[in-house]
Amino acid sequence: MSKRAAPQASGEDRLIARHFRPLARHPGALGLADDAALLTPPPGCDLVLTTDGIIAGVHVFPADPADAIARRALRVNLSDLAAKGAKPAGFLLAVALPVGTTDEWLAGFVRGLSADADHYGCPLLGGDTDRTPGPLSVSITAFGSLPTGTMVRRGGSRPGDTLFVTGTVGDAALGLHLRKDLRAGGSLTPAQRDHLLTRYLLPEPRNALAETLRTHASAALDISDGLAGDLAKLCRASGVTGQIDVAQVPLSDAARALIKADPMLLEHALTGGDDYEILAAVPAGRVEGFRAGARAAGVAVTEIGRVDAGDAPSQFIGPDRRPLAFDRPAYSHF
Amino acid sequence: MSKRAAPQASGEDRLIARHFRPLARHPGALGLADDAALLTPPPGCDLVLTTDGIIAGVHVFPADPADAIARRALRVNLSDLAAKGAKPAGFLLAVALPVGTTDEWLAGFVRGLSADADHYGCPLLGGDTDRTPGPLSVSITAFGSLPTGTMVRRGGSRPGDTLFVTGTVGDAALGLHLRKDLRAGGSLTPAQRDHLLTRYLLPEPRNALAETLRTHASAALDISDGLAGDLAKLCRASGVTGQIDVAQVPLSDAARALIKADPMLLEHALTGGDDYEILAAVPAGRVEGFRAGARAAGVAVTEIGRVDAGDAPSQFIGPDRRPLAFDRPAYSHF
Repeated sequence: MSKRAAPQASGEDRLIARHFRPLARHPGALGLADDAALLTPPPGCDLVLTTDGIIAGVHVFPADPADAIARRALRVNLSDLAAKGAKPAGFLLAVALPVGTTDEWLAGFVRGLSADADHYGCPLLGGDTDRTPGPLSVSITAFGSLPTGTMVRRGGSRPGDTLFVTGTVGDAALGLHLRKDLRAGGSLTPAQRDHLLTRYLLPEPRNALAETLRTHASAALDISDGLAGDLAKLCRASGVTGQIDVAQVPLSDAARALIKADPMLLEHALTGGDDYEILAAVPAGRVEGFRAGARAAGVAVTEIGRVDAGDAPSQFIGPDRRPLAFDRPAYSHF
Repeated sequence: MSKRAAPQASGEDRLIARHFRPLARHPGALGLADDAALLTPPPGCDLVLTTDGIIAGVHVFPADPADAIARRALRVNLSDLAAKGAKPAGFLLAVALPVGTTDEWLAGFVRGLSADADHYGCPLLGGDTDRTPGPLSVSITAFGSLPTGTMVRRGGSRPGDTLFVTGTVGDAALGLHLRKDLRAGGSLTPAQRDHLLTRYLLPEPRNALAETLRTHASAALDISDGLAGDLAKLCRASGVTGQIDVAQVPLSDAARALIKADPMLLEHALTGGDDYEILAAVPAGRVEGFRAGARAAGVAVTEIGRVDAGDAPSQFIGPDRRPLAFDRPAYSHF
């Protein structure tokens, strides 16, 4: 032991103070200056908990902009809260930074995180930062609240329900296709290309629809593994089967143009992941209320099919009224 | 598109069903069959949130037993709950598995996780599993509850408080030293070596002391970055300074033997990380109650110093009554 100054703030403390503390304005974050955060749920409420991670090279391209990576990491969690009918209450961030991560990169990351935390009313409450010899990893745990017992489950759908989907389906999978194959998409306008690429990079969580889902849906989930795969999950959990009218599945103009040029890409749109739209089952008596709620929330919803009794695999009915069969029915990172 | 079966459960779903679902017996886990988990805090309670991660090669040796890695990952979070005075309520697990992770490894991991979840009354509520091209990463978010407004902060200590520490200090840092330098520790008995190695691998979170801390401590935190570094944090947050009587710092027989053989290792014991003991400040009128509570909880606590006014760096007073100065005052992964 030699003469030296007493303990100073560690590198991690300095990094947190410089980059993350300005975000932590919620009282429960305790200024990121304690070992834990506090959350006091409103009386009569359940907390909804979800955690979803992003690993560079698996879920995003390592060279994607730092702010977009941060926003995507938060949005995929916000999307789960939306589908379950919960109002965002805050999040914890666990980030593992590769050696060589620059202050500039971190500043961009925090800028994106901050913008979305504000926009969606989901404040940073705490977190954990580490260095890693591996790729960047961003793991977010998000909290939402809703009146006790009202979480929208996967397993609540019953025969006779109508199936709805928000927004448009397949844009993200087609955007990813464009990123992987630069020659694809020659038939698209620049605006159409941008639309698909942006929809892949930055999902649009449908939190505005949460209360309508909670009030009217019998079951819902967000489409992270593709419409086909996530419909299968909803049906398995509910003990029902689904039938989708493919002609009714909402496609963006860009998706429509790309599929017109290469009809094989329809399967991509229906089975590819990363939509982060919401698939909801709505009982007959609730359909009008659901539509009205969605309209009031400013979220487009489209009726795409129905729920039937039985545990047969769900079907996607094509234009010739025959069921489609898919090569690769659901997206999985495994 | 070709004729093929409808969507099946994905690889991730199968992995969760096989390995993790048996753990998820808490009703809030919803059988790990939904997109989120539910937590209903007791009325009149705050939720305490903490997240801490483990990356192989950074926080553990990649070849450490899978069950020990799992237990360590949970325990470092339980330790935060203990220090804040919170009762464990459950946890979420985000795990990134390197390519080639075997079922046998996963079975061991789940065995360890399950044993500690049961032992500490902290059930698995949900999670996220991914494959990673990088090293194993285990990120746990743990929840605790306590009566509203009673969380033990870092910043509540006042001049005149007595400083206590649980258990023994420095074992983990010395255990890590033994792992890194196989020639070290020649003076130890096999049992002493085992003690230090185990204390490094498997911290003992002091959750039994949580209620006593909540009732009697003015400030507390768990010692993850070393006694010196974490004392500095407590003092900075409280706006006070601390004085530690090094002769009073509790050392295990094994630590004492190792330090006797190499006195330079005393600094290691006082500044090295991973103790996961609790450092607590206790006001004068609360000292007897604190001691009695700890005795009743079966947790050894030792008075090691006092809190003074001022913001001077804290001091570790050596046997010659002069302050020690450290080469490397606090452990940091940065």
